[in-house]
Amino acid sequence: MITVLRLGHRLGRDDRISTHCGLVARALGADSIIYTGEKDDKMIESVKDVTERFGGKFSVGYEESFKKVIRNYKKRHFSVVHLTVYGLPIQKKIKKIRSSKKVLVIIGGEKVPPAVYHLADYNISVSSQPHSEVASLAVFLHDYFRGKELEKKFNKAKIRILPAERGKKVIEKR
Amino acid sequence: MITVLRLGHRLGRDDRISTHCGLVARALGADSIIYTGEKDDKMIESVKDVTERFGGKFSVGYEESFKKVIRNYKKRHFSVVHLTVYGLPIQKKIKKIRSSKKVLVIIGGEKVPPAVYHLADYNISVSSQPHSEVASLAVFLHDYFRGKELEKKFNKAKIRILPAERGKKVIEKR
Repeated sequence: MITVLRLGHRLGRDDRISTHCGLVARALGADSIIYTGEKDDKMIESVKDVTERFGGKFSVGYEESFKKVIRNYKKRHFSVVHLTVYGLPIQKKIKKIRSSKKVLVIIGGEKVPPAVYHLADYNISVSSQPHSEVASLAVFLHDYFRGKELEKKFNKAKIRILPAERGKKVIEKR
Repeated sequence: MITVLRLGHRLGRDDRISTHCGLVARALGADSIIYTGEKDDKMIESVKDVTERFGGKFSVGYEESFKKVIRNYKKRHFSVVHLTVYGLPIQKKIKKIRSSKKVLVIIGGEKVPPAVYHLADYNISVSSQPHSEVASLAVFLHDYFRGKELEKKFNKAKIRILPAERGKKVIEKR
């Protein structure tokens, strides 16, 4: 069971990146995402809307306090993994992390409060080069699930995309 | 040798997503990125600036015509891989693609021209669920290089981040 915690959303500026975080969480096998920062109903709706249309169970929420979220998940015996360029290499730690069946994955916004590094059970980097929280989340989920997330079924979909060599094959239920 | 071609950049709206595409390409082992769409010197500079500070060889460029780029790379015997939610599953095709040592990876903007599907040697999906070109690129590179890209060295870096269990370890050359 995986929940993603996306820190410090900013209205306008983070709109698309935060949406991508939500969609990647859903598509690559997480069960839910929680946003902190500025409350952005429109962005949250856009992620919910994809679940509504493309199926599966995925919940999207907002919380004011990241500390409260982390504490709640710790009480429920989730391992807390903070993805950060400053952390230990994922390739050295993923086996250990995989042994936790419940994981809270934290991804940062621009400035991550120092408390996050201390509250996390693991600070983990996907390369020690600066790049993208969207990419780090994707690689983390892909490694955690060993690629099996790509076979995940999404129930009650109104729209299904079927693999095609060229062009687009889409089935829509009306 | 891997070049990424990022299609249809739009000033303002795609600023951060396109920057993330460039940084992910660099961090996860590609050699260069070419942008098409609206010319955005500021965005391109921000990607170059990271290379300047964090080292390694990575080139960033702009071209007006994606068709010209694809034709040029085909002439130079690159395999052309278009990442799209409509394509064939990466897990079924990555072995075959890995046998090509030169790959042009195309990632879309909002509307990908139909010609791209036809010019590509492979249309490949990273899950058949909608998510993010940043994430698709990351998972593609991670699978193509079998995770070895995470060990890549970046020469002549002014700034190096060292893995740390908590907090930040950064070495800066002055």
